[in-house]
Amino acid sequence: MNFNQIDKKVIETIRVLSMDAIQKANSGHPGFPIDAAPMAYTLWKQMRHNPLNPTWSGRDRFVLSAGHASMLEYSLLHLFGYKLSMDDIKSFRQFGSNAPGHPEVSREFGIESSSGPLGQGIATAVGMAMAEAKMASIFNRDGFNVVDNYTYVIMGDGCVMEGISGEAASLAGTLGLSKLIALYDRNSITIEGNIDIAFRENVGARYEAYGWHVQEVKDGENMAAIYEAIQNAKSEKDKPSLIIVNTKIAVGTAKEGLASAHGEPLGEENIKNYKASIGWNEDAFTVPEDVKKHFADMLPTYKAYEDEWNEMFARYKVEYPELAKMWEEYHNPVDAQMLMDNEDLWSLSGNMATRAASGKVINKLANILPNLFGGSADLGPSNKTVMDGRGWFSKEDRTGYNVHFGIREFAMAAACNGIMLYGGLHAYCATFMVFSDYLKPALRLSALMELPVIYVLTHDSIAVGEDGPTHQPIEQLAMLRSIPNSLTFRPADCTETVAGYVTALTHNMPTALILSRQNLPVNEMTSKEALKGGYILKDTDGTPDVIIMASGSEVSIMCEAYDILASKGIKARLVSMPCTELFEMQSEDYKKSVLPDSVRARVAVEAASDFGWYKYVGLDGEVVSINHFGASAPGGFLLKHFGFTAENVVAAVERVIK
Amino acid sequence: MNFNQIDKKVIETIRVLSMDAIQKANSGHPGFPIDAAPMAYTLWKQMRHNPLNPTWSGRDRFVLSAGHASMLEYSLLHLFGYKLSMDDIKSFRQFGSNAPGHPEVSREFGIESSSGPLGQGIATAVGMAMAEAKMASIFNRDGFNVVDNYTYVIMGDGCVMEGISGEAASLAGTLGLSKLIALYDRNSITIEGNIDIAFRENVGARYEAYGWHVQEVKDGENMAAIYEAIQNAKSEKDKPSLIIVNTKIAVGTAKEGLASAHGEPLGEENIKNYKASIGWNEDAFTVPEDVKKHFADMLPTYKAYEDEWNEMFARYKVEYPELAKMWEEYHNPVDAQMLMDNEDLWSLSGNMATRAASGKVINKLANILPNLFGGSADLGPSNKTVMDGRGWFSKEDRTGYNVHFGIREFAMAAACNGIMLYGGLHAYCATFMVFSDYLKPALRLSALMELPVIYVLTHDSIAVGEDGPTHQPIEQLAMLRSIPNSLTFRPADCTETVAGYVTALTHNMPTALILSRQNLPVNEMTSKEALKGGYILKDTDGTPDVIIMASGSEVSIMCEAYDILASKGIKARLVSMPCTELFEMQSEDYKKSVLPDSVRARVAVEAASDFGWYKYVGLDGEVVSINHFGASAPGGFLLKHFGFTAENVVAAVERVIK
Repeated sequence: MNFNQIDKKVIETIRVLSMDAIQKANSGHPGFPIDAAPMAYTLWKQMRHNPLNPTWSGRDRFVLSAGHASMLEYSLLHLFGYKLSMDDIKSFRQFGSNAPGHPEVSREFGIESSSGPLGQGIATAVGMAMAEAKMASIFNRDGFNVVDNYTYVIMGDGCVMEGISGEAASLAGTLGLSKLIALYDRNSITIEGNIDIAFRENVGARYEAYGWHVQEVKDGENMAAIYEAIQNAKSEKDKPSLIIVNTKIAVGTAKEGLASAHGEPLGEENIKNYKASIGWNEDAFTVPEDVKKHFADMLPTYKAYEDEWNEMFARYKVEYPELAKMWEEYHNPVDAQMLMDNEDLWSLSGNMATRAASGKVINKLANILPNLFGGSADLGPSNKTVMDGRGWFSKEDRTGYNVHFGIREFAMAAACNGIMLYGGLHAYCATFMVFSDYLKPALRLSALMELPVIYVLTHDSIAVGEDGPTHQPIEQLAMLRSIPNSLTFRPADCTETVAGYVTALTHNMPTALILSRQNLPVNEMTSKEALKGGYILKDTDGTPDVIIMASGSEVSIMCEAYDILASKGIKARLVSMPCTELFEMQSEDYKKSVLPDSVRARVAVEAASDFGWYKYVGLDGEVVSINHFGASAPGGFLLKHFGFTAENVVAAVERVIK
Repeated sequence: MNFNQIDKKVIETIRVLSMDAIQKANSGHPGFPIDAAPMAYTLWKQMRHNPLNPTWSGRDRFVLSAGHASMLEYSLLHLFGYKLSMDDIKSFRQFGSNAPGHPEVSREFGIESSSGPLGQGIATAVGMAMAEAKMASIFNRDGFNVVDNYTYVIMGDGCVMEGISGEAASLAGTLGLSKLIALYDRNSITIEGNIDIAFRENVGARYEAYGWHVQEVKDGENMAAIYEAIQNAKSEKDKPSLIIVNTKIAVGTAKEGLASAHGEPLGEENIKNYKASIGWNEDAFTVPEDVKKHFADMLPTYKAYEDEWNEMFARYKVEYPELAKMWEEYHNPVDAQMLMDNEDLWSLSGNMATRAASGKVINKLANILPNLFGGSADLGPSNKTVMDGRGWFSKEDRTGYNVHFGIREFAMAAACNGIMLYGGLHAYCATFMVFSDYLKPALRLSALMELPVIYVLTHDSIAVGEDGPTHQPIEQLAMLRSIPNSLTFRPADCTETVAGYVTALTHNMPTALILSRQNLPVNEMTSKEALKGGYILKDTDGTPDVIIMASGSEVSIMCEAYDILASKGIKARLVSMPCTELFEMQSEDYKKSVLPDSVRARVAVEAASDFGWYKYVGLDGEVVSINHFGASAPGGFLLKHFGFTAENVVAAVERVIK
């Protein structure tokens, strides 16, 4: 690949477009787009993608892990011929623009992943590369590499400093994801100053220690050298690749090398002077004609990539009709009705921990949904997340569907986002519920990107027992429930556990399944109604004196209380509330039918913080809860000690009905 | 230092004690205590500590980062003569025992830090080593090394895999914390199996890349080799040290090398056989007499360490009376009354962003509390957390009080825990509020350990603006408020910002200060009453028709609404609620006086999720809030667009008073 004058002019176009857009918005990060323009353009120029169809499954994937450099991506998208218009760029960072402050995933515009929270982009890309390797192992046949793409990342100093990138890189090295290629823009400037004030390590040596192939490009302006490094990386068949590209932030401008170039517009004067220095005479937001022509000339090459693939896939359908059918199945959305009607799935019964029920459901689902791909952060045997007979996904053997994510909760969750974004597979991950704290930032991105990653979070309350307060969730239910566009489902027994999985698989958002360590009795009254998030489990004749609601392991306590109350002549309605978010999605009529305005005597029972429950019990109600940290002792003891007994529920009821 | 037959017997004592205690509890992690006994005993034997006084400030610090190996620490504490009794060990993991499932910080028993959440122990230790270096730079004089201790850590494979340990190690390397010495027990077994299923990197090379001095001990049973490596590490004056010690999990038992040795008792039969194999004839929970005598003989050596230090410190007081006085000041608790009465502090005034107010308060406080030590995760200029004229703490210059933590939020927060645990300094840290997600697990440990770390979280709502939804907190207020034993303080203006800092400095728990990016008008009605968490800002004659409550930037919107309501003849009471947790700590009478039961028409206003607010507005109230992700656009536009206007508050009031 040659790089000529016109390529240099492309670089200038990207730089000018970026600085102009940021100046107009009076907000943004110009330094990185300016210094990384040569590496990004070189990368995209050689990338196998089709700007005319951003959803082509054979495309190379690109993640801008340094999301603040969004104008770099928008410039590339516009120039290469994606749908992103100059008007979008002119309205950079304004409401409704398709060029928001940080990249937001968009199939329409060719943005593979939302990014911005540092370090998560590279971890998401690791998931994409895992998915590629997995899908290739399933679908490729001799002469038919229907899955065969690279995953590229551009990251900056911030991404490299964040712990999650280290977790992800270690996982990628262990799995030998050789088609993952990360370019590290080392501009050595962060907001507080030169990078060595806070970061003096040898990044190349660190990535070599992770098992990566590492190259360095001395001069970030040298497109030929960058191109060569990328080609070397592509020919590496054993290891993921890091290409360290040395740059100067805001190179060529008056703010070159300055921390102030990171997060502030360059300033009108600086931009004017910069344009003069390079002899730039175009109006703002204008792509020079020769640059336009250059990209128009390249477009057929990119289109041809997809055409070739389509032609191959047509032959593949003939040669391997069953695989082609399976391909469809893997890519189709989950059939909700099929899950609803699956008698075997719903037949699960017996007293067991909901984590055990979950394990059984996962194994039933593995037969119904063969594209389930996931695992635990080294807690598979405890989380009960292993799919029997489905093998393990490793560097040496890509045929397995179970993943050893290692003790890396955050990278695990971000990788699951990448797996879902890649397409074809359905990702799940698992850890102890208290360690949802470690992965919360990635769950938030699942929610923001509307990715139905399944989070299996077991050991769900002080009933964890002896491991003590560091391992006992108290506030995590509140944390999870408060995340917009996500579901938190805490089943009371095996039937509700099935409902939790069906919910997770049929909503375009992540679901956290909150599961008990301890055995729970099967509840004869639970049902598919659980799919509504909250429902009447047991009622009374006429208007109830009190409504009691509970989730998970406390449902059985509430049921015990019912009998005591009945013996005292107190009429209770019991509401099982496995998922408040689903309940909120129901009609007002339904919600009022479960929780009528007229009944103000209400008690909620949950072995967790009361935070959030007053929405349902109001000022006159009570919550039987625990608002302090737990303790180290057997779980059964702790539940009683901290008041989770039928007697206490009865006492609370007697107080609220006064 | 020699290691003889008796030392080997000590190792067996630790092993037997650990397996017996775990068996009796029928719960725990025997593998690690068994395999790490030689390294831990060797480490403690040469450590400068005094079991008779665990609070002696000159002691070496020890953190068991692999907290699940708690029986290792309890065995050592008991044998060395700390207060932890055999009865405590017999009641391992039972309610009220001083030997809980995972170590819980205890000045009384000599446990330096709670641990268990993997990776956090080493990051906490990095903070301790930072504090040691900082305190040494302040107080040491020729011939008077009043601060001169090592910080030791034992960590396992899990700690090394977690991203936070990488962040912390990188920071430690950058800062050249040569008195930090970590022993890595490489037993190569995790819960899911042999470590290479998930972790194949070259850990030694990785730590060298971070700037650490790395050694390897081939045989974890070889105490002489371990001792030699520790002495080498101590003589290294430039870099922190990692000593990789190769071990076999549950060595010598029937479960040697097995994953099942990690988290389950060994079993009565295995223990019996093990004891037979080593010729162990003591009753369970009995320390052999010669082992007892061995430790009793060593005790005077440890006591002498402190005696020497006390003698030196007595001379120091004479030689440097002002430094000795300062030493007291650094170690004394904050004088709450002094802060309450400080007129200059409370005189802060003017329209400004609360992050700007915070910056001014920090700088005032730096003069009142010279032991403030902290900084930001590379956002100092945005968070406004730099103390002017107080210098920067670096490898070359320990005299500064500002810290460049780098883009490592999680390690920053855990390091602040370590700084507070060390004693003498008051730690604060900062990042954008949305990235509180990244550090939440460490904030939880601040809360659990009752450490008043100050978390400065700026850019507190959708008013962040153009950076878009990845950077706009929605649910983070709920997340933070739900954490037990912590405070979340969102001031409305500069006066309440002062109240936030005074609150933070006078409670034995962490405080998250939630601060605006945008300018906020000074509010003439805010006052020291903010220290109650919630207070009547503006009232009406007689019984109000409605109570409106708000925090932070929405207080001014509520005030605007008041005037409109007044013009409509609607009598409103305004409640400023900067800190719901503080409000909950007030007397019932006070709370009822602010929010009387009789007034059920209530509206809360907060540019965040409504999650948690129904506790105050009840079933009949409303919350003007945002329960979905934000968008990329100017902040002022977004506030209006998403309904944070006086008109909307008025409309909500009109609905609730119906």
